[in-house]
Formats: sequence, C-alpha cells, structure tokens
Amino acid sequence: MKMISENKCFGGTQGVYTHASAATGCDMTFGLFLPDEARDGPVPLLWYLSGLTCTHENAMVKAGAQGWAAEQGIALVFPDTSPRGEGVADDEAYDLGQGAGFYIDATEAPWAPHFRMQSYILDELPQLLGAEFPIDPARQSITGHSMGGHGALTLSVKAPGRFRSVSAFSPICNPLGGEWGQKQFKAYLGDVDKGRDHDASLLIEANGLDIPILIDTGTEDQFANHLRTEALAEVLALRRLEATVRLQKGYDHSYFFVSTFMEDHVSFHAEALYA
Amino acid sequence: MKMISENKCFGGTQGVYTHASAATGCDMTFGLFLPDEARDGPVPLLWYLSGLTCTHENAMVKAGAQGWAAEQGIALVFPDTSPRGEGVADDEAYDLGQGAGFYIDATEAPWAPHFRMQSYILDELPQLLGAEFPIDPARQSITGHSMGGHGALTLSVKAPGRFRSVSAFSPICNPLGGEWGQKQFKAYLGDVDKGRDHDASLLIEANGLDIPILIDTGTEDQFANHLRTEALAEVLALRRLEATVRLQKGYDHSYFFVSTFMEDHVSFHAEALYA
Repeated sequence: MKMISENKCFGGTQGVYTHASAATGCDMTFGLFLPDEARDGPVPLLWYLSGLTCTHENAMVKAGAQGWAAEQGIALVFPDTSPRGEGVADDEAYDLGQGAGFYIDATEAPWAPHFRMQSYILDELPQLLGAEFPIDPARQSITGHSMGGHGALTLSVKAPGRFRSVSAFSPICNPLGGEWGQKQFKAYLGDVDKGRDHDASLLIEANGLDIPILIDTGTEDQFANHLRTEALAEVLALRRLEATVRLQKGYDHSYFFVSTFMEDHVSFHAEALYA
Repeated sequence: MKMISENKCFGGTQGVYTHASAATGCDMTFGLFLPDEARDGPVPLLWYLSGLTCTHENAMVKAGAQGWAAEQGIALVFPDTSPRGEGVADDEAYDLGQGAGFYIDATEAPWAPHFRMQSYILDELPQLLGAEFPIDPARQSITGHSMGGHGALTLSVKAPGRFRSVSAFSPICNPLGGEWGQKQFKAYLGDVDKGRDHDASLLIEANGLDIPILIDTGTEDQFANHLRTEALAEVLALRRLEATVRLQKGYDHSYFFVSTFMEDHVSFHAEALYA
C-alpha cells in the first residue's frame, strides 16, 4: 500500500492510498478519513460508495462528511467505483465499464478479469483497512449515493451481520424495473435476469434486512425514473423493516443534496455504531 | 444575466449565473447561494474570493460553506478569479493570467483590456447582485483563500465602509516580501513597486482597517514562505487592530483546511452582519 496524500482535516487525517488489488487485478485507490480518536485505538468505520462516473475523490471533497464524522469519532472510507488503468476493459458510455462497476463481480468477457467490485468491497478492502489502520471491524456501517446507494443496500443484504446500519442518498433501488442496471447486468453477467440477485428491492423482498435503514431522495431528482424509489419503499413497508424513506422536497440528484443531509446520515449511523 | 444552474441546497438555492461584464470585457460566471430567508426579503452577503487556478466552482463545491450560511441566513457569492475566454490574454504559468487575476486592475498590455478584477468585485458585481437578487447592500462581509485572502484583505482597505468584517484562510499577506505577487504586479502593473498599493500588510500598515479581522493559516502550509503571515501579524499588532490571527497546528493549504474552519468564519461574519 502506498500513501498518495494525507491532509489534516477536522482534527483528523484525510488520506489517499493506493494498493495492488488481487480482487480486481489492478491498482486501486481509496480515500480514508481517520478522526483524531483513531490515535488512541480502533474506531468505527462508515463506508461511502459513490455513484456513476465517480472516483474515490468526489465524495471525499464534495459530500462534507468529514466534519460530522470527526464529531462522532468515526472513520470514513471512500473506495473507487471500478477497476481502472491500462488493460482494464472500458466502454465509451458513462454508465458502463470504468466508473461504473455497480459493486458486482462480472462473469463475462471482457469484464470478468477486473470488474469484481463486490469482492473488493466485501472482502479485500476491509481486510486491508483492518490490517493497516486502527479500524474496529465489529463496528461498520455503509452508505452511498445513486449507484453507490444500490451498492450499500445490496452489499448489506449479501453480507449479513457485517454492517450495523445502512443508508443511501438517491439510491438506484430497483434496476430490473428501471434504466440503470439492466444494461450493466447484461454486460457484466451475460443476462439481465441474473441481475435479480443484485437488485436492492428484490433482494430485500426475498431476504429482509435486519438493520436500521435510512433512504433520502429528492422530489426533483432528475433520474427518479431510473431510481424507482417507489419499489424499495413498497418492499420496506411490506416486510415491516426498521426503515425510514424520506422524499426531500425540491432537492435533485447532486452533491448539493447529499451534503445537505450528510449530518443526518452520519448521526443515524453513529447511533447504530455506538449502540 | 443567464442562469446556468440552480440546485436546492441546505434549504436554500445554490445557483450559477453568467453575465456580460463591462469591467472585464468578457462573460463572467459566478456562484450564489441564497438561504431560504431570501424568499422573505434581502439577506446579508458574504463574499468568498478564491485562490490561484480556481474558478467560481471550487469553493462552491469544496468549502462546505452553505450549511453554515443557511444556519445564519446569509447569502454567499463565489466570483471567478479572473476574466476568461477567447481573446482574453493568458500565460502558460498557473499563477499568471487566467485563474490568477489577483483582484487588481491591470494597466499593462496584454492584460489591461480584461484583467480588471478589482473593478469587477468592488463595483460591477455588487451592483448586479443588488439589482437581481434579494441582497442587503448595507450588510456585506468578505473572506477568501490564499490569493483570495489577499483579495479580501486588500479590497476591505480599498473600500472603507463596504464590509462589516473580513477574514481569510491562508492569505497571501505580503506579496512584496514573498514570491506570490511580485511577478504578477510586474506583469499587470508594469512595476513591482506599484504592488505596494495592493499588498495587504503594507495597505493595513498605512491605512489601518477598522473592522473585525480573522486570519487562519496552517502551521504546515506548504506555501508559508509565499504567504508571509508574519508580516501581517506584525502589522495588525502594531496598529492595535481588532484582529485574531490563528496558526492552526498541522493544517496545510488545502480545502480540507478551509472546510475545517469554515464554521468559525461564517459565525465570525454573522456576528458582524447581525450586530
């Protein structure tokens, strides 16, 4: 692992690191915010998964999460959204290939060798973080934006017991019913229908999700039809899960929306992480 | 004036607008955050002047100021740092020409026709904001980062009575004693010595500055020798001005530093704006 940069931030340290990833077969870069408390011992960790086109950097500089995490003594990790670099397959579209890993493991050419973001986020990166930084693996929660909200929700179901709480900003809730996900499932998995195992609404409908859930989506989200918040809201109510779904009046899909409600989300996770 | 974008943000609106500027002879773009209170009438305005290489966008997405401004009912304006576009002179260096206006009016070729940022910030843009938005011209304060801190301090002296308070993050304090400013004064004004009228420390030494002043600079600022905080600190103490100069341990020149202390700066200005 190589340190790219470390900046003091809200009394803690915002670092950027790169490492050779076995899961994705390429170098991966991530951001990690450690609060001041990390100097005294392991701290809880909140994962932030980003959306289409993002790298590790977008949320790290635009979401305004560090101040709230510092207040709560929580670490934040900002992984990249896909493998990258020479030799890694890509597509001209913004929503396929690099920047669009969808937090799944691809099985089809040309994606299969590198596009294994599920394994990277659930297996490899947590091990690395636990080995290299003062992170308490027993206290992890997860959030994300858009495609990253899809990732946070689906990975929570796939790794029961891993996360103490899950939240999402404008998540892609039901890719099999919308326009973000089907194309990617077809490409990465060979068949849209295989996406059923990676659709937050269908996964939660089938398996439940026994941790507190918080969803925020703007009423003016320009991608509302792609997100299908209605499908997730229905499933959460149907399964009678401990969930809050908030439609925030006038907000759109941007980071101006995410930053507005970041304080709420960090507080929500802190409650679970310190319970 | 043309609206480029408007996003709901912390209950208010983060807008981006462009207009044909007479002062700079080109189209100028700025960001404006209006808190929810602006729907009921004119609100106070805090100017944020950005540093070298920045546009209107950097602080708008990275400084985390909107949340604190919303809490205080204060508008924020994020001007660009120079004229831009075809026909506007430029230089290959990052610290001269476009992105490096230094908040002064150039007198020399090829800069004089467009590089008139002092007139733009002190005369034209305030008039436009007053005419187009619910801004209270009697309640204005100013802050900035690096070159923008230099701008905030020097423009405060040049426009007595205009601003109720001034603050700066890692400001260039004494260009005639450092490395950021002399090259630009020579290019824009024809003579380094003419920069004496645009050097915050020299201006304040000669004229005083009768408003509350807050300066934050990191002890690990990688450009400490360019900033010359020591010159300003000396002058402020010598003139016995109402000023606080804080050297913040471990922080560098980045926006991670700016965002960390943004709450303090907005509170500082709110006190003056609501006095």
